[in-house]
Amino acid sequence: MPEILPSYVQGSWWTPSDGGDAAVVRDASTGEIVAHVSTKGLDLAAALDYARTVGQRSLGELTFHQRAVLLKEFALVLTDRKQELYELSKRSGSTVRDSLSDIDGGIGVLFTYSSKGRRELPNAKVYVDGPVESLSKDGSFLGRHVYTRLPGVAVQINAFNFPMWGALEKFAPAFLAGVPSVVKPATPTGYIAEAWVRILVESGLLPEGTLQLVSGGVPTLFEHLKLGDLVGFTGSASTAERLREKAACGVRFTSETDSINASVLGPDAAPGSPAFDAYVKQLMVELTTKAGQKCTAIRRAIVPVGTVDALVDALRSKIDERVVIGDPHADAVTMGPLVSLEQRDEVLRQVAALEAAGGRILLGSSDAPDVVRADGTVGPAREGAFITPILVGFADAGAEAVHEVEAFGPVSSVLTYSSVAEAADLVDRGGGSLVTSVATDDPDVAVELMSRIGAFNGRVLFLSRENARTSTGHGSPVPHLIHGGPGRAGGGEELGGIRAVLHHMQRTAIQGSPEMLTALTGVWHAGATVQSGRHPFRKSLAELSLGDQVVSASREVTLDDIETFAHFTGDTFYAHMDEEAAAANPFFPGRVAHGYLLVSWAAGLFVDPEPGPVLANYGLENLRFITPVSPGDTIRVTLTAKQITPRETDEYGEVRWDAVILNQDDEIVATYDVLTLVAKNA
Amino acid sequence: MPEILPSYVQGSWWTPSDGGDAAVVRDASTGEIVAHVSTKGLDLAAALDYARTVGQRSLGELTFHQRAVLLKEFALVLTDRKQELYELSKRSGSTVRDSLSDIDGGIGVLFTYSSKGRRELPNAKVYVDGPVESLSKDGSFLGRHVYTRLPGVAVQINAFNFPMWGALEKFAPAFLAGVPSVVKPATPTGYIAEAWVRILVESGLLPEGTLQLVSGGVPTLFEHLKLGDLVGFTGSASTAERLREKAACGVRFTSETDSINASVLGPDAAPGSPAFDAYVKQLMVELTTKAGQKCTAIRRAIVPVGTVDALVDALRSKIDERVVIGDPHADAVTMGPLVSLEQRDEVLRQVAALEAAGGRILLGSSDAPDVVRADGTVGPAREGAFITPILVGFADAGAEAVHEVEAFGPVSSVLTYSSVAEAADLVDRGGGSLVTSVATDDPDVAVELMSRIGAFNGRVLFLSRENARTSTGHGSPVPHLIHGGPGRAGGGEELGGIRAVLHHMQRTAIQGSPEMLTALTGVWHAGATVQSGRHPFRKSLAELSLGDQVVSASREVTLDDIETFAHFTGDTFYAHMDEEAAAANPFFPGRVAHGYLLVSWAAGLFVDPEPGPVLANYGLENLRFITPVSPGDTIRVTLTAKQITPRETDEYGEVRWDAVILNQDDEIVATYDVLTLVAKNA
Repeated sequence: MPEILPSYVQGSWWTPSDGGDAAVVRDASTGEIVAHVSTKGLDLAAALDYARTVGQRSLGELTFHQRAVLLKEFALVLTDRKQELYELSKRSGSTVRDSLSDIDGGIGVLFTYSSKGRRELPNAKVYVDGPVESLSKDGSFLGRHVYTRLPGVAVQINAFNFPMWGALEKFAPAFLAGVPSVVKPATPTGYIAEAWVRILVESGLLPEGTLQLVSGGVPTLFEHLKLGDLVGFTGSASTAERLREKAACGVRFTSETDSINASVLGPDAAPGSPAFDAYVKQLMVELTTKAGQKCTAIRRAIVPVGTVDALVDALRSKIDERVVIGDPHADAVTMGPLVSLEQRDEVLRQVAALEAAGGRILLGSSDAPDVVRADGTVGPAREGAFITPILVGFADAGAEAVHEVEAFGPVSSVLTYSSVAEAADLVDRGGGSLVTSVATDDPDVAVELMSRIGAFNGRVLFLSRENARTSTGHGSPVPHLIHGGPGRAGGGEELGGIRAVLHHMQRTAIQGSPEMLTALTGVWHAGATVQSGRHPFRKSLAELSLGDQVVSASREVTLDDIETFAHFTGDTFYAHMDEEAAAANPFFPGRVAHGYLLVSWAAGLFVDPEPGPVLANYGLENLRFITPVSPGDTIRVTLTAKQITPRETDEYGEVRWDAVILNQDDEIVATYDVLTLVAKNA
Repeated sequence: MPEILPSYVQGSWWTPSDGGDAAVVRDASTGEIVAHVSTKGLDLAAALDYARTVGQRSLGELTFHQRAVLLKEFALVLTDRKQELYELSKRSGSTVRDSLSDIDGGIGVLFTYSSKGRRELPNAKVYVDGPVESLSKDGSFLGRHVYTRLPGVAVQINAFNFPMWGALEKFAPAFLAGVPSVVKPATPTGYIAEAWVRILVESGLLPEGTLQLVSGGVPTLFEHLKLGDLVGFTGSASTAERLREKAACGVRFTSETDSINASVLGPDAAPGSPAFDAYVKQLMVELTTKAGQKCTAIRRAIVPVGTVDALVDALRSKIDERVVIGDPHADAVTMGPLVSLEQRDEVLRQVAALEAAGGRILLGSSDAPDVVRADGTVGPAREGAFITPILVGFADAGAEAVHEVEAFGPVSSVLTYSSVAEAADLVDRGGGSLVTSVATDDPDVAVELMSRIGAFNGRVLFLSRENARTSTGHGSPVPHLIHGGPGRAGGGEELGGIRAVLHHMQRTAIQGSPEMLTALTGVWHAGATVQSGRHPFRKSLAELSLGDQVVSASREVTLDDIETFAHFTGDTFYAHMDEEAAAANPFFPGRVAHGYLLVSWAAGLFVDPEPGPVLANYGLENLRFITPVSPGDTIRVTLTAKQITPRETDEYGEVRWDAVILNQDDEIVATYDVLTLVAKNA
């Protein structure tokens, strides 16, 4: 008999001494016992406290970029050993193609967060949100928003269908935010979660206390949570609702629940068109990948009146051509069983409920199919949780059940509509979804649908002839975009790049002097202390400080200069060349200097030309021309070190400089940020 | 007897036919009856549906900018009639100074949202969030996030203390987002809400169905709410918790509740220092404004050991000097009564609870003070809800009551600390607050405190010598910054500029081709259709379309050009001037053209110089230099209309152009956005 699946808590592996009440987990195809699961005697409160103390301390020592570098290392370690994870996953019914979304998908989340963390977050511990707000006329009192990490633990309760991706898509943003995780996998696939956690633990890369695994039930969880903790739940809507009520004041509770996702065939996407073909192929993929056990799978195909037969025919050919049901250990198999017999029976009950509500099976059946066994032979399924793809047609698109009953397997309903508005109403009757897809080549259809279904969906995918091949698919959340949805879909948001990192942090408005805001944000604010002296371009990243400043000499702009610049660049816009026409323009007193002349001169005024630590000017941001410059005016520029971002894995980093061009009357001519690369050491 | 206070529902004023069960509202100073309040027989479900249908339709026809213009008009109408609102507010105990935060503050929120709506939102109905995400290598499949408005009604349940500001700070962002409001004021000050709503209704400016007023109880509210509706609640934490549980799936419920806000005197802010004086003045203001009836008032003064006596002495002098308690109808009065006798009795009960927990009254008393009456005479309060400012000292800073009991009046506790870490722990024991303030001139103190208290506060104000005079104050939310806080403070966010607008919208990830994303966002995406032909600089705003493009001629860059530009601008940085030094730089193959030369030339290449609808280049954004340009390379530029933003109140608008500089090998040299002002008509 397999041992009881261990948990990883407080820095070591733990198994119950008494497994008398352990749950039994079986191979989805053969019914063989794979694991026993129990947490009897586990000290959950101690694990949570370990995260809040040891884990918080470990992550608190690291900046966003340092955490991001670790995420990439985790990804590389898992990549090295993904073959063994593929093998293990077959026991849960996952084909290797299914594992691409779970295993490669999970690793991909780590890579994406590593990359986004370094590109989109500062190399610091605080994240600044939005622009500075001026709250006093003299500039002595400013406002801003910062995010600081939550001081607690992120408890991640995952569903059975994605034991790796489902966990890592919560873990990666928590880790990047600086919040330790306690992962609680679902019992039927907990052995897969145990495997990847073990790989990470064995790598020795995990900072102490930042990842714990509880292999089994956590019935007392909510007694132990408090302000500053988070719960991320993926699973059924009813469980989510029950848990939400138990969450104490201040515990952030987010849920992603299965939803009755829709896929709309646009009125223009006639049978035979590329958009129609893309629609059919997508429906086939969503029915068969993970045997339809995805929160994001298509539950309702919403098609124009008169297209159902064409759809069913096309789908049948596609399935006949591509789908081989069986034990994933057999090479030919492209669609595995459901995770367990219990799950299969539940799906068949829901199919029966759809039939009772007026649905008619148009494709597939509730009967157990013949399948390919591990040894390649074909025959009845016996102990395996196999089911064929099933399409249920509804003559009455308004039937309640079709918008409420979820068969969490390879099952979709088909409904028809007569107008785009009606299609939208049908989508919305799902009561909030993770995703809706629309196959159309008509932007007007897209815009009308979006205006009606936007508020009911976390994600909307527009499939068209241009992206029939490149679409990442209806059912595939990508780490760049939020995953979640309103209403029945749980009301939460996960992923979405750094949006999910910020979910693990508290946004706080801060008010104070420029000096204080500079200290609190790591970004220099106008009005805070400046240092002059050695030219800042002569300072390496290690020597440079916020507020290091150069104030340039002044330079007069003559009409000759404007002429010279105009003829050199070819920019003979009338505002620079024609006194009368320029004066007739509402914004100019007469001929004025080119904005680009001013910015170019400013660089000439502030630059220190000899080789040194400043390697390159790689860009410029937020340039605004405020006061026009007329011939005879003089300009000067101040350049101040505003933000310093050393790179973890390069010998240089970014420096953002605050640039202000002033005229002879101290009026602001232009403001902008200059972006440079600066060597760490001279 | 005054009539029953009317409600404004479904486009007309309504009063119950039977006021038998009406609540009685009395003058806070004299006990005279001011109003009766009842909603007996009001059809709340019909009012909500009116908002969801008529109100949604009214707002759906308007863009963000058009709604923003209306907000300013509302503000102007209310400004014209604010004297009558000041007068009426006196009956609730508000002095004219108190009314500055309620009435002028409320009008200020309208002005700020009007201004921010036009500056920070597009003149459109959809808001785009964050950058485009590339999801396929060939650019045919992109991702992005958009916000579309919620399709329901925003129900705003307000507290008694700010009948105008408290309602308008919820109404303004809802209106700007395009969601109609139903305002439910608190009974004790509902007559003030009725007054400003009446002014707006009389103005004729309110689009139909966008603002309704329910003057009285809404016991059946939660039975009528559904997905797409919102509830914004301000009031007690216990009521918030009860309502939250009743909110149906998908109804956004936000609460701002009173919290046990702290104010920390920094260890460096010794008695006599400017920061100490600012701290004392702020404490006096927070105790006496609205007689301490503010969710944001200071409930815990946390000061260094040994400074309590100095604090009490300084505060006593300040109060003696500035505070005159009485009926706000008397000119001399600077502090009014509480809103009602019931409220006064409640506060005195909480003071008694603090004393029972070890508190000792250091200033003020529970006895009714002598007060200035409306006629200027001084004497006992009789029917008025008067109370003096009270300071309660605690020898044991760890006493539970001090961090949990809220006396919602002119009452603060005083606690002492020995280290910054201990001060932070005391702040955090409040279990989540709307605001904490810190008086310090030491950035290190600020940074250490913030790292420990950030996650427990919605706002943190740093008071220092620089902003002692300019601070907007501990207790004053500003519309630019979020108002709300974690845990006990309700866990919500209001205000914060457009953050609050977005709270009334659904964020949805969209995926599709560049063509579809252009149609859905109103922003041109690279890869979508372009139109050439007439130079786009010759087109007025009315004639210009997204995708209108000019592709320039090519121009070779010579070493002479680089020399000329270097000497003209003064920018002789070695990467442009010294072959050997440039080649030693990790990013350059040898001498390269100045980035600003390229951008200046690009303007020369794309500009159409004659007078026309393009009025000015007012800025540039997101410039990135990708590939260096060596002597002998040629460059060309494409300029494409990316976003068109007509102004509602000017004869021109903004056009954002996508600029891409390419070299002879079609490599991208630089990308940026050019910002111009363009006339609406030629």
